[in-house]
Formats: sequence, C-alpha cells, structure tokens
Amino acid sequence: MKSIKEMFEEQYGNTSTRSSEIMEELKKYRSIDISYSRVLSSMCTIPHPYAIEAHLMFLETNLGNPGIFRGTKMLEDKVIAMLGKILHNENAVGYICSGGTEGNIQGIRAARNIHRKRDGNIVVPKSAHFSFDKVGDLLRLEVRKAGLDEEYRVDVSDVESLVDENTVAIVGIAGTTELGQIDPIVELSEIAIEKGIELHVDAAFGGLVIPFMDNPYPFDFQNEGVSSITIDPHKMGMATIPAGGILFRDERYLRALEVKTPYLTSKAQYTLTGTRPGTGVASTYAVLKKLGFEGMQRIVRECMKNTRILLEEMVNLGFEPVIEPVMNVVAFKTDKAEKIRDELYKREWVISTIREPKAIRFVVMPHVTEDVIKDFISELREVLKVL
Amino acid sequence: MKSIKEMFEEQYGNTSTRSSEIMEELKKYRSIDISYSRVLSSMCTIPHPYAIEAHLMFLETNLGNPGIFRGTKMLEDKVIAMLGKILHNENAVGYICSGGTEGNIQGIRAARNIHRKRDGNIVVPKSAHFSFDKVGDLLRLEVRKAGLDEEYRVDVSDVESLVDENTVAIVGIAGTTELGQIDPIVELSEIAIEKGIELHVDAAFGGLVIPFMDNPYPFDFQNEGVSSITIDPHKMGMATIPAGGILFRDERYLRALEVKTPYLTSKAQYTLTGTRPGTGVASTYAVLKKLGFEGMQRIVRECMKNTRILLEEMVNLGFEPVIEPVMNVVAFKTDKAEKIRDELYKREWVISTIREPKAIRFVVMPHVTEDVIKDFISELREVLKVL
Repeated sequence: MKSIKEMFEEQYGNTSTRSSEIMEELKKYRSIDISYSRVLSSMCTIPHPYAIEAHLMFLETNLGNPGIFRGTKMLEDKVIAMLGKILHNENAVGYICSGGTEGNIQGIRAARNIHRKRDGNIVVPKSAHFSFDKVGDLLRLEVRKAGLDEEYRVDVSDVESLVDENTVAIVGIAGTTELGQIDPIVELSEIAIEKGIELHVDAAFGGLVIPFMDNPYPFDFQNEGVSSITIDPHKMGMATIPAGGILFRDERYLRALEVKTPYLTSKAQYTLTGTRPGTGVASTYAVLKKLGFEGMQRIVRECMKNTRILLEEMVNLGFEPVIEPVMNVVAFKTDKAEKIRDELYKREWVISTIREPKAIRFVVMPHVTEDVIKDFISELREVLKVL
Repeated sequence: MKSIKEMFEEQYGNTSTRSSEIMEELKKYRSIDISYSRVLSSMCTIPHPYAIEAHLMFLETNLGNPGIFRGTKMLEDKVIAMLGKILHNENAVGYICSGGTEGNIQGIRAARNIHRKRDGNIVVPKSAHFSFDKVGDLLRLEVRKAGLDEEYRVDVSDVESLVDENTVAIVGIAGTTELGQIDPIVELSEIAIEKGIELHVDAAFGGLVIPFMDNPYPFDFQNEGVSSITIDPHKMGMATIPAGGILFRDERYLRALEVKTPYLTSKAQYTLTGTRPGTGVASTYAVLKKLGFEGMQRIVRECMKNTRILLEEMVNLGFEPVIEPVMNVVAFKTDKAEKIRDELYKREWVISTIREPKAIRFVVMPHVTEDVIKDFISELREVLKVL
C-alpha cells in the first residue's frame, strides 16, 4: 500500500519544493496577529508542546465518522472519563466539542428537549457569557437574567423568583468571564432539585482551574442537581483549538439530542456538528496525561501567583480590584477603562474592559509570566502618563 | 522577548525528551483507525500537503478574537472573497465555520430571524442531509420534506405545494450526500423570489466540485433567489478539518445572526461558535491559491475519471447504478447492501449504504485512486463469493 505522501505526489507532483511563495504570504498575515506574550485578556493560551505533538498525529481524523476513526473514538471515551473523574462523576457521558458555546447550547438544548415547554425559559446570572444570548435565540428560549450579590455571585433568591412553570433550566457559572467568580452552585442545585428542572454549569474556564486549587468550591456533579457541565480543555487545559467539552450526568441527556444518521458508520448522532476533528481529543489527552493532577496544580498555582503579582503592581499604581481575585481573572475599577484599553492596543498590548462596574480586565493565563507582567506594567505607566 | 518554546520550558521544563511514552500510546489508538486508503464512503479526505503546512503555521490562532488575530481575520476575508468569486457573488459575506452542519444551521437561522414566524417551517428535499433534522430541532422549525423525481432531484411542484405562509426558507442541494445529485436550483430560486422567502443551497460537497466541471449547473448566487450557500473546504477543498464555509448574499443576513460581545476586541459576533481556529482559513487559502482554477479542475477530472472506472468495474460485477453519476458520488442497487457493507467492514474496507432504493454507496475522493479501486474490487469479489 502506498504512503499518503506517495499518493499525493502521484496526483499533485512533488509539492514540497514549491510551497515557499504561498507560505511566505501566509507568514505575512500571521505576523500581523498580536503575539500571545502581549495578550492579557484571552482565556485561550499557547498550546502545550505535548498538545501540538498529539494534534499533528491526529490531523486527518474525523470523529463525525467513529466507525472509521475507531481508535480516536476510544481515546475520546478515555478523555471524557478523565474529565468525568475531575468533575466527580465517573459515569458522566459527553464529548469533545468546538468550544464553550457549543457546550452551553447542548446543555440547554438537552434540558429543553427533556422538558418540552411551548414557551420555555432559562434563568441565567447577569454575569453569564454572551453565548447564552445565542442559546436563547437559537433554541427559542426566553433568557431571564438574575441579579448578582455584592461579590458578583448570582443572587439565589432572585433566581428562585424568576423560575416559573416554563423554566427548563437554570445556569450557574464556575469562573465568570468578567471576574472569574463562582456562583453558589450548591444552592442552585437545591433549587433545581426542588423545582424538578435542570442545572447547567458553565465551567468552560473554571472547570480546569477550580479542581486544582486549595479547598476547591464544589461546583460539579457532586451536587445532585447538576445535569450538565461545560469544561473547555482549550482554555486552561492548554489543548489545541478546537477542544471544548460538554459532559452530562447520564445517557438520558444524550438521547434527548440524537438525530438519525442514515449513511454513516454510526446510527445516531448527538453532537451539534457532524464532521469534527479528533485533534482536540488527542491534545487534551496528551496534556492531562503528561501533567497529571500535580502538574495541573503547579500550572494553576503559577497562574495564581502571577495574578497576585499583577494585583500588587496594579494596587501600587493606585488601582482597586473589583473583587479579590477568586481565580486567575482580575479586574480593576477605572472610569478611563476604554481609553486605557484603546491606548494600550495602539501599542499592541491587549486587555479588555467590563461595563458594570467600569473596569479593565485581565486573564492571567500560563503565557502571562512574571516577565510579561513586568513589561506590561512599565508600558501601562507610560500610558497613564499620556491619558 | 522570549520565544514561545523558552516561555514553556521555563514553566514546564524541557518537555521534548519526555514525550515518547504518551506519544507511543497515542500512536496505538491512531493505528486502530482505518486508513483513508480503505475508505470509499467519506466526503473528507487526506488534507493536501499545503493545507497541513498552512495549518501548522496558524495552530494557535483564534478567530473568536479578531482584534488579536488581525492578520488571520484579513486572511479569512480574502478566503471568503475567493469563495464568493467561485459562487458568482463578489460581494458575498460569511465565514469559515466548523462544517456543513453549522453552515446549514446559520443559513436557516438567518432566514428564520428575518421572517419571524411563530410556527415557522422550512421545505427541504427528502434527499437532504440529516443535519436539517438537527436544524429543525435546534431552531424549532417544522421540517417539511418534498418528494424527488425519478432522477432523485427534488420535485419542484411538491416544494411549491408545501410552501405556506409560515415557510421561512426552502433548501436545495448541490451534491446530495447519497447520490451526488443536484436539485433544480434555478426553479427553486424562482419559487423563493415569488413567495418572498429565502433559498439556502447546501453545496457542502458540490460547492468545490461543480464549478470545476464542464458546463457546470448554475447552482449558486447567479440565481437571484439564492440567499445563502454552505460550501465546505474540508471536503473537496482538501483543507484541514474544521473548515466549513457559510456564505450569504449580503450583510443583512449576518446582522440577523448577531449577538453583542461585551469583553472582546469586536463588538458583535455572528458566528455560531465563539472561539474558533484560524487553521481552516489558512489551509483553505493555501490549497486554493496553490491549485488555482486549473488545479481544482484537474483534481475534479481525476475524481470523475476514477468514478467512471469504479462504475465500469461494478457494472462488470453485475451491479447497476441508481443514477448515472453526476459528480464523484455513485451508488449501486442491491438487496444485500447492509451485508456487503458489514462483510467489507470486517475486512477493514469502509463503504456505506442508502435505504431508498437499497444500495451501496461510494464517494470517490482524491484518496480513492485507481490503485485503491483495483484493490477494493478484488476484495469485493471475495466478499460476493461468501455472501
């Protein structure tokens, strides 16, 4: 049997020597991108070297056809079992998806399909990611937004008052996008059980942070009311994009998502997309396997340490944090938030802003090292002088 | 500024020498996958060598944050312009998405959001891909299935009779999954204009086949009624997965999909996913730029030639095609379809089946070379002896 390379060269000729011009052009576009070492506001990061190596090995795989990519499918089952263990549910089911938005869509879609209300609604914290607005539009559900307490956690009594007979799910966030705060999932779980509705936890960011912190908050399946969890390896798991994760308490939720697949090697499909790469599965596995619990703990501790360094530097510059950082996300109050952000962007440094309260926001990912923070702070000093 | 490698080694140590054990394990799983050289039923293929090279260069990019990945975003605009040109609309807008399912979701979602009917419906051919069942469930639209003529094209008068005041869109397929047939898009376009509704064309497969055939059928934006087109570079475009494409006639459709994005470098987002890789953009660009119109024509001609070879070999074995192949998809009637498929699968050859009429189905992708066909036919001879 011929090798892939031989098969291609037979058809396309020996391509390896003629690619330089196109690759030079691509390099030019790539050089216009801002390097991660100047980005302090992304929840993604440079993939781990093991993630890249694993990614390459699985480059042509397609989990949309698990009868062909049988080994890749076995590996996915293994990855889901690993994530299930981290989330205190060895029987959890699910799959590696395109990212947090798909995870949130599928969690809520399963809830909607199980409860079948004509004018259904979901209750989400005001702090929920904007993907829940997509979910509402897509699934035709009313999105009710519950207020927050002074620590920017969702107000449990407000959630309770917004739930009615048409509510199919409530949502709790474990690691809010703006502040890295964790909602009171324990209390939300009790509401979900009492009302007989689903609780979806958006732990896209926090799912691979909280379990590795000291005295982790119980945000996961250990709460009986939690039905589904979004947990993204391509954020703090340092896997290659796309590697989101959606896990469900049991098979019942997958059944609620299935459509029939007449011409594939499988009979039904519960994923949102059809064709989907196995690269995220392989890169997630490689990183988790390589680092293990202690390795992930080391990464999270390092990020938390750097978050404290950034906090101290910012306090020295006269800034006040919106809340004491819970994880490696921190925001500082300032009326000049947009101006600071825009001036930094002109200098090719990327931070972001939040609106309530007006603040500048940072995510201290593994690429935001002590050196990066020092460079950033000295640029910020310059910016503050001219504003 | 430190290199990425240096930054990682500072935190994780020199990882390059310790990866062997995990990579050996991954290789084992990968070896359980069936090689593309034994797969005659997939609409994906081995990525083009240029696609792989481009993919690697853009591995860490995230188009969910176009203010950071500015160059990658510029490249995406260029790719959309190239695809727009191929589809006879230089003003087309859109983006590179996760695949055909996302393209179909977004095409229909835009139509639904523009027409806003409480109990909306869409009319699709019976031959439509199962992703339209997902679309119906997801978007809460009734999916009405129109019958086919004897050539397995959608019956235009049946479409017309199914359209009512609640119809938001009709769908035409340019390259059906089962038979590679092309619906009468010209006539569907007239219906769409007359009824004032949208026409979405699913050319996930055919979009990068038909334009390179002799006397191509006019399936695209040259028909005034066509609102949106799904066209997947990771199928016949030989790009790396994920690289789907969704193009719209004009900006109005993107506006119907937007949600606000408070903490990103952009202000609104019309994509289905948030975080999304730039690898598909780069690999699509590299392949189209390298091959050009003539190169794509050569690939398509080669696939059509091999389709004829497979057809002749199958006819010699006593099989009859369901229709004369229109593109590089061909199916053969047999009551033993499932048995043949299952027996071949035991021998690690992958084909698929269709149900109406009972038939075995082949997709002659670039990796299905004359040699692959010869090997396959001799295995099939053996299989037919034992059945």
